[in-house]
Amino acid sequence: MSGQAMPFQLTILGTSSALPTSNRYPTAQVLHVLGRFFLIDCGEGTQTQMRKYKIGFSKINHIFISHLHGDHIFGLIGLISTFALIGRENDLHIYSHSELQKFLSPQIEFLYANELAFKIVFHPLNFKKEQKIFEDSKVKVFSFPLDHRISTCGFRFEEKPALPNLIPSKIEEYLIPIRDRQRIKEGGDFGTNDGRIIPHAELTKNKHQTRSFAFCSDTRYDESYIESVRNVDLLYHEATFASDNSEMARNTYHSTGTDAATVALKAQVGKLIIGHFSARYKDHTPILKEAQEVFPNTTAISEGDVIQVEKGH
Amino acid sequence: MSGQAMPFQLTILGTSSALPTSNRYPTAQVLHVLGRFFLIDCGEGTQTQMRKYKIGFSKINHIFISHLHGDHIFGLIGLISTFALIGRENDLHIYSHSELQKFLSPQIEFLYANELAFKIVFHPLNFKKEQKIFEDSKVKVFSFPLDHRISTCGFRFEEKPALPNLIPSKIEEYLIPIRDRQRIKEGGDFGTNDGRIIPHAELTKNKHQTRSFAFCSDTRYDESYIESVRNVDLLYHEATFASDNSEMARNTYHSTGTDAATVALKAQVGKLIIGHFSARYKDHTPILKEAQEVFPNTTAISEGDVIQVEKGH
Repeated sequence: MSGQAMPFQLTILGTSSALPTSNRYPTAQVLHVLGRFFLIDCGEGTQTQMRKYKIGFSKINHIFISHLHGDHIFGLIGLISTFALIGRENDLHIYSHSELQKFLSPQIEFLYANELAFKIVFHPLNFKKEQKIFEDSKVKVFSFPLDHRISTCGFRFEEKPALPNLIPSKIEEYLIPIRDRQRIKEGGDFGTNDGRIIPHAELTKNKHQTRSFAFCSDTRYDESYIESVRNVDLLYHEATFASDNSEMARNTYHSTGTDAATVALKAQVGKLIIGHFSARYKDHTPILKEAQEVFPNTTAISEGDVIQVEKGH
Repeated sequence: MSGQAMPFQLTILGTSSALPTSNRYPTAQVLHVLGRFFLIDCGEGTQTQMRKYKIGFSKINHIFISHLHGDHIFGLIGLISTFALIGRENDLHIYSHSELQKFLSPQIEFLYANELAFKIVFHPLNFKKEQKIFEDSKVKVFSFPLDHRISTCGFRFEEKPALPNLIPSKIEEYLIPIRDRQRIKEGGDFGTNDGRIIPHAELTKNKHQTRSFAFCSDTRYDESYIESVRNVDLLYHEATFASDNSEMARNTYHSTGTDAATVALKAQVGKLIIGHFSARYKDHTPILKEAQEVFPNTTAISEGDVIQVEKGH
């Protein structure tokens, strides 16, 4: 179902929490869905990581910013400057808290005196309820509120169903003319010459199942967002601490490995990946182990990981 | 003369020009002079590089910014945020164009609402002539104008002469009492009991020679700053291009390898190091080779290099 033909894959650019370490970068991920490249969060050094892991700058048209802490936004100005240096002209869409403009616009004005050759379109997020923030012919993106110290959203990316295929043996059986086939794919029934109506469902089979990915960072454990990630094929959930620091996690509005896995279990997701590890953990094995005890299909992410989003993990 | 006891050494954190590559970081260097750690320029990712090469955050009290292009300043806000996260209280001194405040202050205000626990002291540079911008008991720092598209300064770091040592055989010969010795070290002569005056120069020998380092980036070739780097023991000079792109170098106010080496030759420096290579050069050998033809004691820098500043290269 996956692979090059129908790509739906996530590339990890950064996995650290607020303090970057010598080998971990702050949060950034690129989701490739059927030719669209969505950048999710943009910590310092994101553009370097994009070069390293061969994500083309010109492919990025949409950036999703979960919240306005430095480790999720400090790479934006460098990336925008590089866009300017390489002659970008396409609009750049940024989905974030409306306040991001107050942070970014003075910097852009200072550097480019409003002479940027491309337009930045800011799309404000809703921190009260889930909303659809992007849709085109093949993908829908939703934001939903998380529970962090400041207003924060998670994001869910859904592949839209493709048109079903006509079943070859049915075309033969009912002698379906070419001119009718597209209409049937789009949901129509077929009327035979002898007056019978053959329903759409009998004539078609789904080409593939739709895949979905959800991103939850930063947040503490809160059941309010479980419905927003229900049944996704791949869930990224932050796991800053292990449970021996569960009180600190609670107080700083972060999650433990157990918290992340409990969300995955209750939401019945396919696969869980965890990251945003605190710099205090030189080795994240304790965080991963406690998560796997609750939700076995869990892995810890590292910079450069490429994860296929697949049905039926 | 060098080594751990009397450190004067440069650590290279970034060597790329405007567009970072997958294995080069934008400009940043740390000069360690006798316990003082001076950060020179602060491109995106500088804090990550500091961690990697074990430069303690709390040791940085002075940051020198040559000019306000993004590849020399985008790491500042991340570094300042990390200072805040780790509880810094000491003043942070930044030497730069006065406009840096217009770039930085709105970001700091946005993130910390003026509640930073430490003070940032901005020291404006003079882009018309050389000036002394820092001095303490052991080090002096000067800025001097370079020739770039926007106002840019180079920096020269000079070790101050230590007091000379008394020559033991002379102490014995003239029976110099302990109470007179500090005064003689500080420049005084010695009067013997029989009325002779023994001059300071006969009684002392210099403990060590003073060392110096100069930083020139970004600039095109211009003889006006040669006096400011004359006779330094180590010169860092940008060399963005090889001479096959000398016209582009001239037009974009950058230097070729030959330009950098000609400055080193005319200023009679001890050793030359070059960097700030354009991303178009996957291999900087051509730039290095042409520089060595003019000034043989030249090396090309890489991230993580630690270079001892020594007399008599």
